[in-house]
Amino acid sequence: MTPEKSYEELVRISRETTLLASCHQLLQWDAEICMPRAGVQHRGEQMALIAGLAHDRATDPRLGDLLGTVEGSSLVADPESVEAVNVRERRRDYDRETKLPRRLVEELARVSAMSSQAWSEARDHDDFASFAPWLEKTFELAREKADAYGYTSARYDALLDEYEPGMTTAQLTDLFTGLRAQLVPLVDSLRDSSSESKSEASAGEFPLDRQRKFSEGVAVKLGFDIEGGRFDLGPHPFCTFLGPGDVRIALRYHTDNFSSGFLAVLHEMGHALYEQGLDPAHYGTPMGEAVSLGIHESQSRMWENLVGRSEGFWRHFYPQLQSAFREPLMNVSVDAFRREMNVVRPGLIRVEADEVTYNLHVIIRFELERALLDGDLRAADLPGAWAELYRKYLGLTPANDRLGSLQDIHWSEGLIGYFPTYTLGNVYAAQLFATADREIGPLEEKFAAGEFSPLREWLREKIHCHGKRYRATQLIERTTGKSLDPSALIANLSHRYAPA
Amino acid sequence: MTPEKSYEELVRISRETTLLASCHQLLQWDAEICMPRAGVQHRGEQMALIAGLAHDRATDPRLGDLLGTVEGSSLVADPESVEAVNVRERRRDYDRETKLPRRLVEELARVSAMSSQAWSEARDHDDFASFAPWLEKTFELAREKADAYGYTSARYDALLDEYEPGMTTAQLTDLFTGLRAQLVPLVDSLRDSSSESKSEASAGEFPLDRQRKFSEGVAVKLGFDIEGGRFDLGPHPFCTFLGPGDVRIALRYHTDNFSSGFLAVLHEMGHALYEQGLDPAHYGTPMGEAVSLGIHESQSRMWENLVGRSEGFWRHFYPQLQSAFREPLMNVSVDAFRREMNVVRPGLIRVEADEVTYNLHVIIRFELERALLDGDLRAADLPGAWAELYRKYLGLTPANDRLGSLQDIHWSEGLIGYFPTYTLGNVYAAQLFATADREIGPLEEKFAAGEFSPLREWLREKIHCHGKRYRATQLIERTTGKSLDPSALIANLSHRYAPA
Repeated sequence: MTPEKSYEELVRISRETTLLASCHQLLQWDAEICMPRAGVQHRGEQMALIAGLAHDRATDPRLGDLLGTVEGSSLVADPESVEAVNVRERRRDYDRETKLPRRLVEELARVSAMSSQAWSEARDHDDFASFAPWLEKTFELAREKADAYGYTSARYDALLDEYEPGMTTAQLTDLFTGLRAQLVPLVDSLRDSSSESKSEASAGEFPLDRQRKFSEGVAVKLGFDIEGGRFDLGPHPFCTFLGPGDVRIALRYHTDNFSSGFLAVLHEMGHALYEQGLDPAHYGTPMGEAVSLGIHESQSRMWENLVGRSEGFWRHFYPQLQSAFREPLMNVSVDAFRREMNVVRPGLIRVEADEVTYNLHVIIRFELERALLDGDLRAADLPGAWAELYRKYLGLTPANDRLGSLQDIHWSEGLIGYFPTYTLGNVYAAQLFATADREIGPLEEKFAAGEFSPLREWLREKIHCHGKRYRATQLIERTTGKSLDPSALIANLSHRYAPA
Repeated sequence: MTPEKSYEELVRISRETTLLASCHQLLQWDAEICMPRAGVQHRGEQMALIAGLAHDRATDPRLGDLLGTVEGSSLVADPESVEAVNVRERRRDYDRETKLPRRLVEELARVSAMSSQAWSEARDHDDFASFAPWLEKTFELAREKADAYGYTSARYDALLDEYEPGMTTAQLTDLFTGLRAQLVPLVDSLRDSSSESKSEASAGEFPLDRQRKFSEGVAVKLGFDIEGGRFDLGPHPFCTFLGPGDVRIALRYHTDNFSSGFLAVLHEMGHALYEQGLDPAHYGTPMGEAVSLGIHESQSRMWENLVGRSEGFWRHFYPQLQSAFREPLMNVSVDAFRREMNVVRPGLIRVEADEVTYNLHVIIRFELERALLDGDLRAADLPGAWAELYRKYLGLTPANDRLGSLQDIHWSEGLIGYFPTYTLGNVYAAQLFATADREIGPLEEKFAAGEFSPLREWLREKIHCHGKRYRATQLIERTTGKSLDPSALIANLSHRYAPA
């Protein structure tokens, strides 16, 4: 077969695999949003079948042959060409998929299902001991997996590479060390100012239907294409990309906490704008896919934190908010409202953390999962190590394991090497935002005037439309002129949060 | 391979094909209920892929080999055994699927898509002429299809067999001739009494949310398992069986017409109870599937008409209805309410027809589609033939084709031989209901006491749990002791509708 024909066939298989994955995603979305309880077993069978069909395609030896025919041909001579990118990325996926022995794939799926079940029960009963053997087993399998993938320096690299291709443990260690050194004193300096009790701004009742209307309305104004998407209430906020013209956001609101629900809308909308900004002509191939979890998270965090908490944003939207919620906000100034929204208060729960302390939660998990993976920490000793790091970095000690190492589902599902992408997202977001501010800003002034399309279009042009053409750090460097660098994040946080 | 191993493999393939079909059904359901508009093209690609994968399995030559190995073995010696039924039905499907040349399958899909598009536009503009060539083409292809399937006496048999296995044109002609001979005079005798203007009972406003609450509440009381199902608002009422534990009902309500929305709920619930009554252990094999469209329709029509319009039913439910809708029903007696609900008024539109005239609409379509299929009627001449039959059987003439031959989507989609199953459903329902009344009745008294489980459980035991073990007429004969016979339907209608 000629390289051209092989490439065409590669694209066809890639599209078909993606279509199957998108059917799997609908099954998943529906299970969370629509499916009646009793449908769970049947749904499991549907999902297993579709996942199996997708896996068969992804590991088909014919794929290896096709890749071999195209690689080295003139078709992929330019490494930034569509063909070269698609071949490079499918080769990467194919090699990863085929490196894992089937026995290990099945064992990982089996243990993950049972381990997350055990985690859920352990958390409900605050019984870490019952979960510890599953955690131990999960990290054992993760070690096996990393060894099957292979690595040159750190074993953790092999896992991290799944979520943030090209990123290394050494780079992360550097980044996080620098970040931690600046965040710990910043949090300390804010500790006093933020210990005040709940202010008037968040004390009232925010009716759910009006929150929905307001928040979804804002997302549409910021650019979420509602003709090609929808909003639902879900058990937790998430964004599902089903395919071109179909991006769905699930949300959760709380009557007594407007900010939490609203910021989640902006967060998921950030993910959604990325997906809606991908080129539909490249759907089903790497050129039509997001770069990495970290870059994805940079989009959600930017809209959530750098836009949605900003002064300009609320100068524009606060009057509308106030008229939607007269009762609770009648006597609350925009400044008081923003102060309350942006309060820094070290806590024990990552998902409830403010923007400043959040990254310390992630850094703690990064340090612990590396130690667990390398065997330097036994699962049984996790609670002690957890408490020690929370004391050191956040000055707090969890009263029990539900407030400690049982709070996140990730490890129980085998997601190891995933947490750092949250903080990478924050770091990338700050770098990108600073660049955009320089190139098309001042952004705050635009926000205050209700102009959000300049930032959105800038992101489309700089990030979204490239698909997987560049690796994350390469894309950041191309766009910002700088390599991975936490100083923009620190500068931004210090500027906005430094005690007056 | 031994017959036992071959049978196991047959079941595995059958389950997998059904699972794929159920994924297709979710894609379809979601497209009607949830999908954003812009997702339509991507959805088409997902559906085509899954349909193709299901088709590959259904026509895999290996299936023919496996069937061959099991057939004639001792495993299927007892023709009513699970194994024999599953093999018999999969053989039937396999033979049908493989008799159609791929070219014809593709042509049918292509023409159906374009023809239903043309139908929709023709209906919108009342422009039959623009649709006529598509209708002609559709019937040409239907002829080809029938010839590919093969038949012994009537060509129509080959198409009918798809929806009502084992039923013949000769049987239908007999049945419908008898039915028509009795319905036409019955309708005539009721014509005067029913020409009164809209009564008070349906003149008020019925708020949609309260209709939903009441109607869905009734469906659950009658036995719809809500733990294994859900209700949605949809563009039209329908019931989707996704798999064990997942049966979904879509509904549409009208503020100014309570009965229409409510009876549709009971209708779809009748379908749903059938699906929920199938044995989940046989899921994915014929023993876990409904007998035919006619038997399916007998379940929906029974709950809609024979239960939901009955005096006993409303003796029980009317007080609740009245308190849910005080405003419109305050001064309406249960008798006046029922009179209005059961008014007989010959009309031009099938889906708006009352219970008595409904079957005449179906008989007209049966006569016309046979003539079109046999080439005795040209598509271009349909409007004239249509008007002629409506005048003859219902005493009405459509003022235009939107009120005439452009009202139904069926033919444009290639569904020929489908309409009769609606009336078969009514005939089966009346026969089954009369038998149940004899065996566990009087049912009306039970309904009046709020007891609906006896009928539901009787249907489960007599109909639902058997899957495809028996052909439709065989099942009716086993259950009622009589072959297909319209007299129960005529007796029931005459009893309930005869002028006092």
